[in-house]
Amino acid sequence: MNVLEIIKRKRDGKKLSQSEIEFMIDNFTHKKIPSYQFSAFLMAAFLRGLDKRETAWITNAMLYSGEVVDLSEIPGRKVDKHSTGGVGDKTSLILAPVVTAAGVKVPMISGRGLGHTGGTLDKLESIPGFRTQISLKKYRALIKKHGLALIGQTKEIAPADKEIYALRDVTGTVESIPLITASIMSKKLAEGAESFVFDVKTGSGAFMKKLNDAKTLATSLVSVAKKFKKKSVAYITDMNEPLGNYIGNWLEVYESLKVLQGEYVYNLSELSELLSGTMIWLGGKAKSVDEGIAIAKDLIKSGKAFDKFLEIAEAQGADVSYLKNPSKYPKSKFGEKLVLNKSGYVKSIDNYEIGMAALELGAGRMKAEDKIEPKAGVIFNVKIGDKITKNSVVAELFTDDKTRIDGAKKRIESAIKVSKDKVKKVKLIKAQIS
Amino acid sequence: MNVLEIIKRKRDGKKLSQSEIEFMIDNFTHKKIPSYQFSAFLMAAFLRGLDKRETAWITNAMLYSGEVVDLSEIPGRKVDKHSTGGVGDKTSLILAPVVTAAGVKVPMISGRGLGHTGGTLDKLESIPGFRTQISLKKYRALIKKHGLALIGQTKEIAPADKEIYALRDVTGTVESIPLITASIMSKKLAEGAESFVFDVKTGSGAFMKKLNDAKTLATSLVSVAKKFKKKSVAYITDMNEPLGNYIGNWLEVYESLKVLQGEYVYNLSELSELLSGTMIWLGGKAKSVDEGIAIAKDLIKSGKAFDKFLEIAEAQGADVSYLKNPSKYPKSKFGEKLVLNKSGYVKSIDNYEIGMAALELGAGRMKAEDKIEPKAGVIFNVKIGDKITKNSVVAELFTDDKTRIDGAKKRIESAIKVSKDKVKKVKLIKAQIS
Repeated sequence: MNVLEIIKRKRDGKKLSQSEIEFMIDNFTHKKIPSYQFSAFLMAAFLRGLDKRETAWITNAMLYSGEVVDLSEIPGRKVDKHSTGGVGDKTSLILAPVVTAAGVKVPMISGRGLGHTGGTLDKLESIPGFRTQISLKKYRALIKKHGLALIGQTKEIAPADKEIYALRDVTGTVESIPLITASIMSKKLAEGAESFVFDVKTGSGAFMKKLNDAKTLATSLVSVAKKFKKKSVAYITDMNEPLGNYIGNWLEVYESLKVLQGEYVYNLSELSELLSGTMIWLGGKAKSVDEGIAIAKDLIKSGKAFDKFLEIAEAQGADVSYLKNPSKYPKSKFGEKLVLNKSGYVKSIDNYEIGMAALELGAGRMKAEDKIEPKAGVIFNVKIGDKITKNSVVAELFTDDKTRIDGAKKRIESAIKVSKDKVKKVKLIKAQIS
Repeated sequence: MNVLEIIKRKRDGKKLSQSEIEFMIDNFTHKKIPSYQFSAFLMAAFLRGLDKRETAWITNAMLYSGEVVDLSEIPGRKVDKHSTGGVGDKTSLILAPVVTAAGVKVPMISGRGLGHTGGTLDKLESIPGFRTQISLKKYRALIKKHGLALIGQTKEIAPADKEIYALRDVTGTVESIPLITASIMSKKLAEGAESFVFDVKTGSGAFMKKLNDAKTLATSLVSVAKKFKKKSVAYITDMNEPLGNYIGNWLEVYESLKVLQGEYVYNLSELSELLSGTMIWLGGKAKSVDEGIAIAKDLIKSGKAFDKFLEIAEAQGADVSYLKNPSKYPKSKFGEKLVLNKSGYVKSIDNYEIGMAALELGAGRMKAEDKIEPKAGVIFNVKIGDKITKNSVVAELFTDDKTRIDGAKKRIESAIKVSKDKVKKVKLIKAQIS
């Protein structure tokens, strides 16, 4: 087999065989194909496309570039969730303990935030002592003992994805649905889960701004899961406004604790319940998603979900006194209220800008090596359709670096459009694909 | 300006600006853009295309990556020819002295053979003592004194092309008409010529196998020449059978000497006369191409063209006794006659295989660093439409390495298809574009 011939075949729109795809992925990962050839291949794949079978084969080659965790000796079904990323999306922190409390195992390997979206790992690490850099051996032990584990990518998991993603990032080949699918699925399939819930975001704060692109990605994820004989459900959910009101790492942990302790938070509670209910159903602990949702609500009401969160946090090294008593957590040096000086109804929110404002305050990173400030972020008080007056505090900004406030404020100000006419609330769940 | 944004714009089918194109070419050539980004850009350009303006801008950026020779102080018009390469194509050796003898200046910078096609430089260097690695200063002096120079690419000429071609060669981005155009024209425009004749080959022994592709390339070459205010004529000519009968470096010099001394060789004489006549006309020494052809024939008949060849060969260091008395040249150790054991009419020739047979015998190179054997090659005795019998010697094979004979023989045997029915001769000149 010959690299150049394979590049040319994809360039000419031919379908590749499984062995050709394996040859490319394996040899690139082992540095036997130079990056300049692989990037030409990626661009050809980007522009010519990859069909369902090719996507599954790329996923497979990337998956088996590393360790594939086998959790079959641990009793019970294992279910995980994947979100394509959004602003204020802290559902993982809520659903993981809820679903585990329902008796389903949750093997969860998460990523960090990049750009305008947050990452579960950064949120967890804002809890003093919480360790996410954990070996796969310890990961397995945590699931066995506690029913769940909330860890970060290890170098054994799909190393090909890491190499390929780094190259895609600098060669204009990120926004390819087959390549995105392979990247997500190669990591998810390595975790040891049997079923998945995919939360594919759409809207101004999502990577897939258009509903149709989100649907295509959701269909692609479900299709690859099926090829690996994994059951899955994908929801297309709204990202035109933040989930909940808190954006920033510790701020999001704080809001998750509120939900886990029974507080109702608009759109965040609803989505967390739906995802939890679906996972409980996939995990065999409910006869329907609706029954799963009812179970999830009960587990929150009874305090069992909150207890499970304390349990896993403690097992992963956290000082749980901060979770029991969040007021103990240090405060940002600067807190600034934002008033729009407009009255009317919130017509639209450029949610990307809200995420970027939080990032600017210190909550996120533009480059992988940037440091984040766990306390920093935004409390964003309004949703589309809300009525505001000239004095409404639409947001509160938190940071340790005063120079960052102005830029963040401007982003939020220009992101919110207000109308004199009444505006309908957005629909949270746009579609379901399975 | 940002590399990634430019890659994405081309990926998405956008037209690039001149400054974007210059940014890419300049920074890649100065190693400020890594090859993995440039190869993704090349693949995007390959698949999305480049329009006439983009092609001219790429040509311009590549041209001015190096030295652009100015011959304006040398009196008389300067005309050069470029061929896209073929099997047995030794027209440069014939037309250069003919056209110079007519009073036109011929500044000719040629390349080496690669793959199944020969290169003018390798042919010239088969003449003992003939030097082609000559400085641009000496090049200018040769044209001033002798009216022509037959030299090789220097490192000052379009260095960007060398870098880019090396990357295209290993990333499946060679066969792009705009990129081929820019590669050819950036080198040709650096030579100092004012007009060009393009000989674009089509058929089994050409790079452009299909007539339409050859026409597109010819149109693209003429169009870029026009953008640089250079007059040009392109011919689409047949490459379904070798030009003349001799294939291999010294063998082709030998056949050129025969033509320069007045011998008529089927298809080679006709093409050499047409190209010479067109150059003489472009050079202002004839009122029409036909008049140019008549002048060319006269210059051969009178011996002036042959004398000019001896003159430039001597000026470039050759031992001209080999040209005056070719029988002095060493012979290959092995010479093998090929009989097909078939009778009928030659229906088709896979001319690529004839070129590859000569290469296998030692006349060419697969990789740039391969050494060639100047004596090696094939005398190929038949043309399409020729009648052959069971005993016809269709070819003679020459090599110093006996082990190479069998493979070359098989290539030639399988390349020739014979028919019981009469077969028409091929048309040499397929089209003219100007």
